[in-house]
Amino acid sequence: MRAWQFEGRGKPIALNEIPEPAAGPGEVVIDVQAAGLCHSDLMYMELGEGVMPFLPMTQGHENAGVISAIGEGVEGWAVGDLVGVNSAGERPPLGMFTPGGFADKLVANAADLARVPEGLGPELAAIATDAGMTSYHAVMVTGGAAAGMKVGIIGYGGLGQIGTRAAVLAGAEVHVAELKHDVWDLAKAAGVADVVEDAAAWKGQGFDLVVDYAGFDTTQKAIDAIRPGGTAVQVGLGKPTFTVVTNTLLGKNLRGSLGGTVADIEEVFRLLLAREIEPAYTVIGFDEIGEGLERLRRGEVTGRLVARVAG
Amino acid sequence: MRAWQFEGRGKPIALNEIPEPAAGPGEVVIDVQAAGLCHSDLMYMELGEGVMPFLPMTQGHENAGVISAIGEGVEGWAVGDLVGVNSAGERPPLGMFTPGGFADKLVANAADLARVPEGLGPELAAIATDAGMTSYHAVMVTGGAAAGMKVGIIGYGGLGQIGTRAAVLAGAEVHVAELKHDVWDLAKAAGVADVVEDAAAWKGQGFDLVVDYAGFDTTQKAIDAIRPGGTAVQVGLGKPTFTVVTNTLLGKNLRGSLGGTVADIEEVFRLLLAREIEPAYTVIGFDEIGEGLERLRRGEVTGRLVARVAG
Repeated sequence: MRAWQFEGRGKPIALNEIPEPAAGPGEVVIDVQAAGLCHSDLMYMELGEGVMPFLPMTQGHENAGVISAIGEGVEGWAVGDLVGVNSAGERPPLGMFTPGGFADKLVANAADLARVPEGLGPELAAIATDAGMTSYHAVMVTGGAAAGMKVGIIGYGGLGQIGTRAAVLAGAEVHVAELKHDVWDLAKAAGVADVVEDAAAWKGQGFDLVVDYAGFDTTQKAIDAIRPGGTAVQVGLGKPTFTVVTNTLLGKNLRGSLGGTVADIEEVFRLLLAREIEPAYTVIGFDEIGEGLERLRRGEVTGRLVARVAG
Repeated sequence: MRAWQFEGRGKPIALNEIPEPAAGPGEVVIDVQAAGLCHSDLMYMELGEGVMPFLPMTQGHENAGVISAIGEGVEGWAVGDLVGVNSAGERPPLGMFTPGGFADKLVANAADLARVPEGLGPELAAIATDAGMTSYHAVMVTGGAAAGMKVGIIGYGGLGQIGTRAAVLAGAEVHVAELKHDVWDLAKAAGVADVVEDAAAWKGQGFDLVVDYAGFDTTQKAIDAIRPGGTAVQVGLGKPTFTVVTNTLLGKNLRGSLGGTVADIEEVFRLLLAREIEPAYTVIGFDEIGEGLERLRRGEVTGRLVARVAG
């Protein structure tokens, strides 16, 4: 089968022909239909051998496809089921310690599968398993967004768009901070109360919750925006470190959000199917994954790039 | 009456003779019996006019005494009751915006009073209202220490001693990080599992909770020590800022703890009365408050300094 593999730091990702995998106990084999391209793919390859001890390593961790084989002891799943794979599930990180889904076939743990509802295509299903789940989990589970809350979203990119919409649908009053004016109209159409360029403008405004999907020197601004007892959620990793004035944190909460659960993915499936969330994405071919990653690296991508693998 | 007052930045705190206060609606007048000296007193005076708009301002925010007058609408309290005053209560900060308790008399809001049990002296009662409440609240309320949890305490000073003991009494397995070896035996006698010099030694050890009473570049060490889903609580303000590696916070919680409630104070009263907590303190005279603050500034004080005012 075909697989896009990392072979060592500084080398371009390679399209190789490798043997097909089999399903061990508790596992399934999935015929991949769609594979999303993510900034984390670039980060893993930048970190290289330090986070990828076994080379070559097939990349990709945002996948949906059809079950084609079932291992011993797997219950509740059948060959032919369309599923998404939790990108932050039980299995060691896909694309780092175990082969990812930039390939014709992918092995997943049964516990990490989310059932794709009838009518939802594999591209959106794939997006739900990583970008969707991560952004939903941060605002709804880690942040606890709810009706009546005053919520700030920093960064209206791929994740911020989904997080914003989830908070609006939950009945929160949502404010967005986004540098790029060209997406302000999109944010307004999503039902937000207002958009500012810089979250520094929110200082002292008593937000209940601010979710920072950017992480470019924005953590302090999030803390300054929330009321005593409020919560700031850090998701974005724009810069490797952040600095906070210690006494501004007193009485406040800062939580780092990572990944999510199968239940989060299935809730995102529901919102996508109902067209309550409509993330922007571009479909490319399987052969274009290498070039797509380069476009992502150069910052030329708006919305998500999703490779159609088969089906 | 006598009052130790801040008169302006750079000037020594002055012992002045000022008029006695009266109780407004919802307030009581307390004849102060004990007044604790706190590093925050020094910080306020260092910040000076920026946080003290009304000069001269009577200092002190760790007080216990006897109610001597009752304002309109106050219920549940009587002249002669021995009370502690919540240092972080409803009233604007004592010693900053409203006169504090380095004085013969102090006005307090009735909602900020904690009833001192029979048999507990005013010195320990005073300590409970600030050092006691703050340290108890951080570990038990903000941190949620409970039986079976693995808890780290950074800094075995005035606050850390009380927080450690509260966590031990709650049934947690408590580990202490403290630079000064001369208090290690005290920590061990308090029932801790072990003592290390530097919390960096806890990295990756899966603590459920770490409470940082120091704040000298210790926040990152606290985050590194906790498990995914665990909580680090920041209390100490040793340095004005802290820096964290962003991705180390993902999946973890960092909470800043500030002050506490009347219920926390009354719980500390109970533990002090039962001798479950025995903080070190030194009693000085009212006239020695100015000199005592200088000793505190020079780092010459072990345990708490408490001025005996009257009674």
